[in-house]
Amino acid sequence: MREIRPEDLDNISRGAAILGTGGGGDPYIGRLTAEAALRQFGPVRLMDLDEIGDDALAVAVAMVGSPTVFLEKPPTLQQIASAPRLLASHLGRELTHLICAEVGGVNSLIPMAAAAVLGLPLVNADGMGRAFPKIGMSIPAMNGIRANPLALADEKGNHSIVLPISNAWAERITRSTAVDLGCAIIVSTSAMSGQQAREFMVPATLSLCSELGSALEQARAGKSDPVAAVVEKLGGTRLFTGKVIDVSRRTESGFTLGEVRLAALDTGLGSEMVLRFQNEYLVAELDDAVAATTPDLICTLDTATGNAITVERLRFGQRLSVISAPADPRWHSADAISLVGPRSFGYDIDPVRA
Amino acid sequence: MREIRPEDLDNISRGAAILGTGGGGDPYIGRLTAEAALRQFGPVRLMDLDEIGDDALAVAVAMVGSPTVFLEKPPTLQQIASAPRLLASHLGRELTHLICAEVGGVNSLIPMAAAAVLGLPLVNADGMGRAFPKIGMSIPAMNGIRANPLALADEKGNHSIVLPISNAWAERITRSTAVDLGCAIIVSTSAMSGQQAREFMVPATLSLCSELGSALEQARAGKSDPVAAVVEKLGGTRLFTGKVIDVSRRTESGFTLGEVRLAALDTGLGSEMVLRFQNEYLVAELDDAVAATTPDLICTLDTATGNAITVERLRFGQRLSVISAPADPRWHSADAISLVGPRSFGYDIDPVRA
Repeated sequence: MREIRPEDLDNISRGAAILGTGGGGDPYIGRLTAEAALRQFGPVRLMDLDEIGDDALAVAVAMVGSPTVFLEKPPTLQQIASAPRLLASHLGRELTHLICAEVGGVNSLIPMAAAAVLGLPLVNADGMGRAFPKIGMSIPAMNGIRANPLALADEKGNHSIVLPISNAWAERITRSTAVDLGCAIIVSTSAMSGQQAREFMVPATLSLCSELGSALEQARAGKSDPVAAVVEKLGGTRLFTGKVIDVSRRTESGFTLGEVRLAALDTGLGSEMVLRFQNEYLVAELDDAVAATTPDLICTLDTATGNAITVERLRFGQRLSVISAPADPRWHSADAISLVGPRSFGYDIDPVRA
Repeated sequence: MREIRPEDLDNISRGAAILGTGGGGDPYIGRLTAEAALRQFGPVRLMDLDEIGDDALAVAVAMVGSPTVFLEKPPTLQQIASAPRLLASHLGRELTHLICAEVGGVNSLIPMAAAAVLGLPLVNADGMGRAFPKIGMSIPAMNGIRANPLALADEKGNHSIVLPISNAWAERITRSTAVDLGCAIIVSTSAMSGQQAREFMVPATLSLCSELGSALEQARAGKSDPVAAVVEKLGGTRLFTGKVIDVSRRTESGFTLGEVRLAALDTGLGSEMVLRFQNEYLVAELDDAVAATTPDLICTLDTATGNAITVERLRFGQRLSVISAPADPRWHSADAISLVGPRSFGYDIDPVRA
């Protein structure tokens, strides 16, 4: 795929929902926004990492805030384009490429809308290869790409350029400004050169979204198992097939925390699974043994359709398949584990690889 | 006074406390900070409005946050200088002068510290001729000088450039960022040309501070009445002399709200006075009749020494004199009254001029 057109968005957003590992924000609004931008401004050129010049200036664009508010107050195209424009103007340089901070969920689609409005190519890569909840939780951030400067925009026309001393401060200032400005802002940051993008981004993840979506489509058309198609595409494992028997969810400092409990429908894989989440799924326990953990991907798919079911859509009685898939190998370094391993989220267990 | 030296600060800060009309933050920390800056970087040149070139770039510097926190965590000189530097760099212009957003309280002294560190002249003027609690409550703001761009700095090295759509949004974003960054930040904004400064600033208010301080000193040395000396200097009125019999103070959304009740010691001026405050004194009632209101100045002075007593230092049994003094005449326009008149603070009364 060399160009993204409105008709590609179904597959991309289905794939992005899977890579969101339960979180990342439902891609629905991102999809509508990207579609509006593509229809108005034309297709977006998707560029592989090895096509980008060393001296490119690539910046990430993402929504920060509450996905629920985004449903009520979708971002405007003006807002989506103004954050990267402001960042480039602060840097005093010309923007050449847009990148996705995370491929999972809504933030795989927001940069596409920005690329359409700005008439710039989008890089076929992202900073996580999945979704994680904080600004500093990306492979570029781990390698010294800072969330400074960080430009933000609300839908009313308010803007800021934040110059934080650390990614933790970037997170803190951005979160509270997001609340101030109505819980749905667009952020642009993580400026990097083409060379840095090649070194630090997870390659080919937007085309992977598209391939996941089309694998689902083909499986359904051919009456084969859509969950198996996803597992194969991701090189993953089917951990469990069951029925939701309990969901416990609470909102704490802007995060959705809790767990979902599933009873087996396919006894061959154990009798009960518990998934613990903090926006994203982080730990999967099968009959009291840990079966998979962050940083690897844990996803819940509707067993019949293979579509991802996000944490906020979990409901009693749903028939789900739980799959795991390996994260980018760089997420398994000691530094990465201390940043996004189970203990960094408060689970006193060692990581279990998918 | 053409230069400000450390030995001038006693009088200036005494005068600034009076013009703070009960609020504006105790000048104590501002005084220590300005003194440190003057000792390290040398004296600051004080420039009258008519000495400033038309094409000057003058910017205000002020603390925003909780004066109580400033006592525990005084601003660093680095922090005070970096906010106006960042503002100038965002504007892409060279800074030529520093100005005081408000003359009352701590913010008459912070710009002096900035001027010393940056080696720039300070303008002998301010935007209010007193203290008011919000960014938009200044004569320049009333005349279209916007708090956009607004640069802010904390003591750790975090910075932001805020580009709000209105002064109300500037206030909101700045307040919550101040809370985030530890309740004591330095803000620089209200960039104006020399021509605008001449047109919109209240002239000669820093030299007035100094004159008030020296009038107090002379009165005390000559055993004459220091309160009378202040009243004369301000062209004001002594409203009451009494003893504090009740103070009610509460903190609400970052403001100190309440009232103080005084019983007469000098029955010639009535028997009881109530002062209502929201950071600053806004309404003075004498035996149930309104005696003075915002925008005119209402100040409480220690009857024996003539020193200003701020709202946060009010205590049962204090012997105080209450004085009023006329605000800059521009504060009495219809627009100004709707911005800072009694009704804008929730008191359903007409303004009563001092």
